[in-house]
Amino acid sequence: MAEEVSNKQMVLKNYVKGFPKESDIILKTSIIKLKVPDDSNDAVVVKNLYLSCDPYMRGRMSETEGSYIDSFTPGSPIIGYGVARVLDSSHPNFKTGDLIWGLTGWEEYSLIKSTKGVFKIQHTNVPLSYYTGILGMPGMTAYAGFYELCLPKKGETVFVSAASGAVGQLVGQFAKLMGCYVVGSAGSKYKVDLLKNKFGFDDAFNYKEESDFNATLKRYFPNGIDIYFENVGGKMLDAVLLNMNLHGRIAVCGMISQYNLEEPEGVQNLFCLITKRIRMEGFLVFDYYHLYPKFLETVLPLIEEGKITYVEDIAEGLESGPSALIGLFSGRNVGKQVVVVARE
Amino acid sequence: MAEEVSNKQMVLKNYVKGFPKESDIILKTSIIKLKVPDDSNDAVVVKNLYLSCDPYMRGRMSETEGSYIDSFTPGSPIIGYGVARVLDSSHPNFKTGDLIWGLTGWEEYSLIKSTKGVFKIQHTNVPLSYYTGILGMPGMTAYAGFYELCLPKKGETVFVSAASGAVGQLVGQFAKLMGCYVVGSAGSKYKVDLLKNKFGFDDAFNYKEESDFNATLKRYFPNGIDIYFENVGGKMLDAVLLNMNLHGRIAVCGMISQYNLEEPEGVQNLFCLITKRIRMEGFLVFDYYHLYPKFLETVLPLIEEGKITYVEDIAEGLESGPSALIGLFSGRNVGKQVVVVARE
Repeated sequence: MAEEVSNKQMVLKNYVKGFPKESDIILKTSIIKLKVPDDSNDAVVVKNLYLSCDPYMRGRMSETEGSYIDSFTPGSPIIGYGVARVLDSSHPNFKTGDLIWGLTGWEEYSLIKSTKGVFKIQHTNVPLSYYTGILGMPGMTAYAGFYELCLPKKGETVFVSAASGAVGQLVGQFAKLMGCYVVGSAGSKYKVDLLKNKFGFDDAFNYKEESDFNATLKRYFPNGIDIYFENVGGKMLDAVLLNMNLHGRIAVCGMISQYNLEEPEGVQNLFCLITKRIRMEGFLVFDYYHLYPKFLETVLPLIEEGKITYVEDIAEGLESGPSALIGLFSGRNVGKQVVVVARE
Repeated sequence: MAEEVSNKQMVLKNYVKGFPKESDIILKTSIIKLKVPDDSNDAVVVKNLYLSCDPYMRGRMSETEGSYIDSFTPGSPIIGYGVARVLDSSHPNFKTGDLIWGLTGWEEYSLIKSTKGVFKIQHTNVPLSYYTGILGMPGMTAYAGFYELCLPKKGETVFVSAASGAVGQLVGQFAKLMGCYVVGSAGSKYKVDLLKNKFGFDDAFNYKEESDFNATLKRYFPNGIDIYFENVGGKMLDAVLLNMNLHGRIAVCGMISQYNLEEPEGVQNLFCLITKRIRMEGFLVFDYYHLYPKFLETVLPLIEEGKITYVEDIAEGLESGPSALIGLFSGRNVGKQVVVVARE
């Protein structure tokens, strides 16, 4: 008989409209068997260690149809990226004791029924939590979006919105390594300081202190913007369009300013796409995971040599998960928001 | 002494706001010397034969700064594409008697001070007016936008708005030649018939009879849209975004529905760029003129073999120019709008 243990879970209470509240995610305790099903050949049971809070998760809290990713199921645990220890496995590539990162449940233990979205962690000389961020989905997002879509060249000007977040802080550092001029926007003085003094952005501003984004961008980019890494959408995008240079590129990674609106803001300046011959392209990291080995080869040495840095905002305990996740949408987090479920 | 002749001109009365009126362009008669200046080495004097009415010209009627192209000068003739006969030349590539197409004035005779934007007409076994359309700027626009930006593949679904216009009718025919499924939108029953019966679109609809573009597009594209050739902007673009397929491409050629608005409509569904990984790219034909020889090689035989057809709406006489140009914005033209200044 396999061991059965109590399993604390964070479950979605009901589909969410508008701005999510902590109380939309509630604690539930159930029982889990720490063994993969006998008839499985691609499953793992894991002990969850770190959980990742990411803006895209807001979409899964809504009742939607035909999205690129399913809604969460009310009454069931939230699903997200995490780092976990394998307790049992029916897949030959994953052994008991292995560390993995990938999609898992917001709970102490998870049965992951397919290892398709699961990566084995091979390098443990960095903080394990990095696999929720710089070495995980957000890292790959920054890497694919910046190098594959923005096609940066030395000397170009780069604007990053939500620049101190899990993805933005990396885009800015990649851009600096490429020899670009980089400005970031963020939502507090402290974050602006981080951008300038910790991540090495050439400049940064607090968008909450700016009333006219067009004028702001003209001040920070008197010669225009060649590359915009878009994380926020709405009014900022409209102002960016007015300030893009000819043949500029916009990688559309996220639009966090829009996620909790019942109706999205309208973007008025799309005519600039024509006059400035701008390429604007949306992407999802899932399409780029084949580049993960190449990404690790690039980024691990940069971390080890101290050429790239990463700031995390760590919340302690599964119970802190709802507050940590909801905090993303008011920008309460500083850097990558992680929830520690267990420190081994 | 060079011959001096009377020269009827259509001049912009004043900068235009909102919807332009015929009376914004007025007739003026001046005198012109039919000889290039003695100190010139790159000028031609021409007799204008055909003038082209194109939607982009609306932008030049406004007082704008920092656009990709200068405003017209009030009191001076409108500038646009045209076909003309060379009367005198100081450039070795252009001889008296040559036919050319390129930017010229809305007047009987023009002194073109630089031949940079002027192409010599080599093939005259097609109607000369075609060099304002299928073999001129609109033809190159359709060609570059469709082949270079949309990267079409056989079997893909293509939607073209303003589909019976100078550019749209060609895009649809190129798409059919490529083996795509093509639907066009236009603004009258007659134009819809043209699309289906003359240009060989698989289907077409009158957008003025549709109240819910999203539902309309779902009806015509039950399996979604792979390629959108954007000529209109606004509400149609918003509905298209909802109906694009994964990895769809949008070539942004024009946004004629927006040109006469004091404030552009907001586009709300840009988040679809992310979830569907859409590439949306604006372009101007000026960047693609190096492809003109290749374009002629492709399109001339298609015209000669009757595999491609072209519908023009011919207005007789320079005096009919203002009405012809303004008519574009209410969709009064059927096909490419041309003004005949002189038939030789």
